[in-house]
Amino acid sequence: MALIVQKYGGTSVGSIDRIRNVAARMKQTRDEGNQVIGVVSAMSGVTDGLIGMAKELDENPSERELDVLLATGEQQTIALVAMALLAQGVDAASITGRQAGIFTTGSHTRGRISNMDPTLMKRFIDEGKTLVVAGFQGITVDGMVHTLGRGGSDLTAIAVAAALKADVCQILTDVDGVYTCDPRVVKNARKLPEISYDEMLEMASSGSKVMQSRSVEFAKKFGVVFEVRSSLNDNPGTLVLEEHPNMENVVIRGISIERSQARVTISGIPDLPGMSGKILGVLADAEINLDMIVSNTSNDDNLSRHSFTMHSTDLGKAQAALKPLLAELTPNAQIQTEAGIAKLSAVGIGMRSHSGVAATMFKALGDKGINIGMISTSEIKIAVTVDEVHIEDAARAVHDAFGLDKAPV
Amino acid sequence: MALIVQKYGGTSVGSIDRIRNVAARMKQTRDEGNQVIGVVSAMSGVTDGLIGMAKELDENPSERELDVLLATGEQQTIALVAMALLAQGVDAASITGRQAGIFTTGSHTRGRISNMDPTLMKRFIDEGKTLVVAGFQGITVDGMVHTLGRGGSDLTAIAVAAALKADVCQILTDVDGVYTCDPRVVKNARKLPEISYDEMLEMASSGSKVMQSRSVEFAKKFGVVFEVRSSLNDNPGTLVLEEHPNMENVVIRGISIERSQARVTISGIPDLPGMSGKILGVLADAEINLDMIVSNTSNDDNLSRHSFTMHSTDLGKAQAALKPLLAELTPNAQIQTEAGIAKLSAVGIGMRSHSGVAATMFKALGDKGINIGMISTSEIKIAVTVDEVHIEDAARAVHDAFGLDKAPV
Repeated sequence: MALIVQKYGGTSVGSIDRIRNVAARMKQTRDEGNQVIGVVSAMSGVTDGLIGMAKELDENPSERELDVLLATGEQQTIALVAMALLAQGVDAASITGRQAGIFTTGSHTRGRISNMDPTLMKRFIDEGKTLVVAGFQGITVDGMVHTLGRGGSDLTAIAVAAALKADVCQILTDVDGVYTCDPRVVKNARKLPEISYDEMLEMASSGSKVMQSRSVEFAKKFGVVFEVRSSLNDNPGTLVLEEHPNMENVVIRGISIERSQARVTISGIPDLPGMSGKILGVLADAEINLDMIVSNTSNDDNLSRHSFTMHSTDLGKAQAALKPLLAELTPNAQIQTEAGIAKLSAVGIGMRSHSGVAATMFKALGDKGINIGMISTSEIKIAVTVDEVHIEDAARAVHDAFGLDKAPV
Repeated sequence: MALIVQKYGGTSVGSIDRIRNVAARMKQTRDEGNQVIGVVSAMSGVTDGLIGMAKELDENPSERELDVLLATGEQQTIALVAMALLAQGVDAASITGRQAGIFTTGSHTRGRISNMDPTLMKRFIDEGKTLVVAGFQGITVDGMVHTLGRGGSDLTAIAVAAALKADVCQILTDVDGVYTCDPRVVKNARKLPEISYDEMLEMASSGSKVMQSRSVEFAKKFGVVFEVRSSLNDNPGTLVLEEHPNMENVVIRGISIERSQARVTISGIPDLPGMSGKILGVLADAEINLDMIVSNTSNDDNLSRHSFTMHSTDLGKAQAALKPLLAELTPNAQIQTEAGIAKLSAVGIGMRSHSGVAATMFKALGDKGINIGMISTSEIKIAVTVDEVHIEDAARAVHDAFGLDKAPV
């Protein structure tokens, strides 16, 4: 008998009928001889409604109180799903984040899971109960309500699976799994049967927003095998797990693309210690998330040049933050900006043991006449920027060049 | 500096504007030099909406899950009221039933408060915070969510006041206080400045539904002085407190009336031990709340006669429950029923030390030509039934007879 954790998002529980469907699916999994634990989000729309009321009272409501308010959304869902299970003859019980023993640290509205005490869940499972656990919420050691921020219910599911040593954690969502590339862009993209944690992390940070990175990191840390699969059908999805030797046979697992990027290039900066730190510091203070960071220095004039990419909506903020600093540092500094670019990343642990990967990728792009802007690499990723108008052609070219439409033998 | 607990019901917090008003009132009380703790209900309509969803899933939803679901209503209100206080510059914090240390026993949906652990509330008060506590909810010793049933928020307010040794607990409601009689019936009814717990209990059980009896009993047990007053104005209300010697100078504190009553009379029952128990037993099994119970036996034929009053909606159920029992007991039993009656109760601790109270009351009714049906007395109450069409005349006559329109000297 396998222990399976199933996570259902807000759309999956967005109406009374859908809640009945979720209960039916949990019952089916149970009837197939498994123990099942559901982890559920707030019904879609509920969280936004609560935030709307809070903002009527205060444009920047207290984060402590926002947590108390928002945690009610998931608490309502667990009760309703448990009722639906009971109505279908399944002995069920709801479990709040607190009852699940999900202890958190960090700030309100973005708590981090620090510890799990699954005593009550274990007792209920031993009693034969099917549990419905509130996603997105936990408590601090002194009993304050915390929510876990974006992707918090995924994180809850992974943490519950870890604490109970579940056999698998199913993340049921509106996509079928993880694909070699976005199927809306690359028609012959293929659903991956499996992907390693590290590859999933690189895909996530490169724009394939199936899951937040921290949930994947948490799963990797505790060795939780999870599966991304559709909540709308019974097709197998994509297993995310620790890499095993066979996985290295595949050079590139997948390609992710990220649009609406912008680049800032600062040149004419004297190459002195601490310069990069100052520049990155003002951008961090302005709460701008940088993605690619490339720096180099010319031997001729000993001036350095720094390029960063960011989401294009942050471009104005970045310019405003940099101008006073550069005026202070040197009169010769220049800022150039470029919007309308996109990033393409090829990801695969096979890269470690295969040479010539970058060459294949750059040739594929060159053959299509697509110019490469910045380049950034990690051990298992090569990322490039291209003009946004070319990103779909670029993705198809690289997908073809690595033969990703065909299952590896 | 007085510590004041203020309880606000669902209507008082029924919209964002009203929540702002509640916060303003709490702030005003604080600005007058007091410490304030709010105890709040779910926003009006929220609880019914949640019950509606539950009933869509299951006509008789699990009471455990209903508690988990309904407790979210108050949790939302505490966060919103705390946000409103913060927006008005008051350092505030919401407190769930669990955080307030309200421990309960008994069944789900009708928990009873068994213990209070106000550690967290005390810590927050010491930090200068104004607390907003969720009414209607508590937890069992093993951490399950409980709700307290009808009037549960009043009970929470009294319990919080008891645990924190508050100076007074204000029950803010849609009536101005406790009156000598319902002012819609007796135009010159007078608001009472004070009333004893025992009188309040007799008034409550006699139809003056300002508060549930158990909240008054809880206040009496722990010596919590509370005040019933309007949430719409600043007028003083009615203090409910332990009786003091001066109170006995008033013979009758107030008169309460209860309409839509019905009477069942069973006659021809052999006067044997256990007969009354059997009859009351079947009525209890049918979940019929009996009010007045009168029995007597004739020496002539040794047959006994039992009369009960109940709400008229229970009359059919009572007849159905009694018929098979009487057929089994004796072929001579007869059931008579009478609907369309009402009960009038005169309540006052002064009755203990004044004689002739019943005579005054019966004469007042007789002078108006109003016939008395059943009579039932306690140490501090005389209750009679009359035809429902006469109840208002009866109330006015008795109110006049005891001079209740005039404040005692």
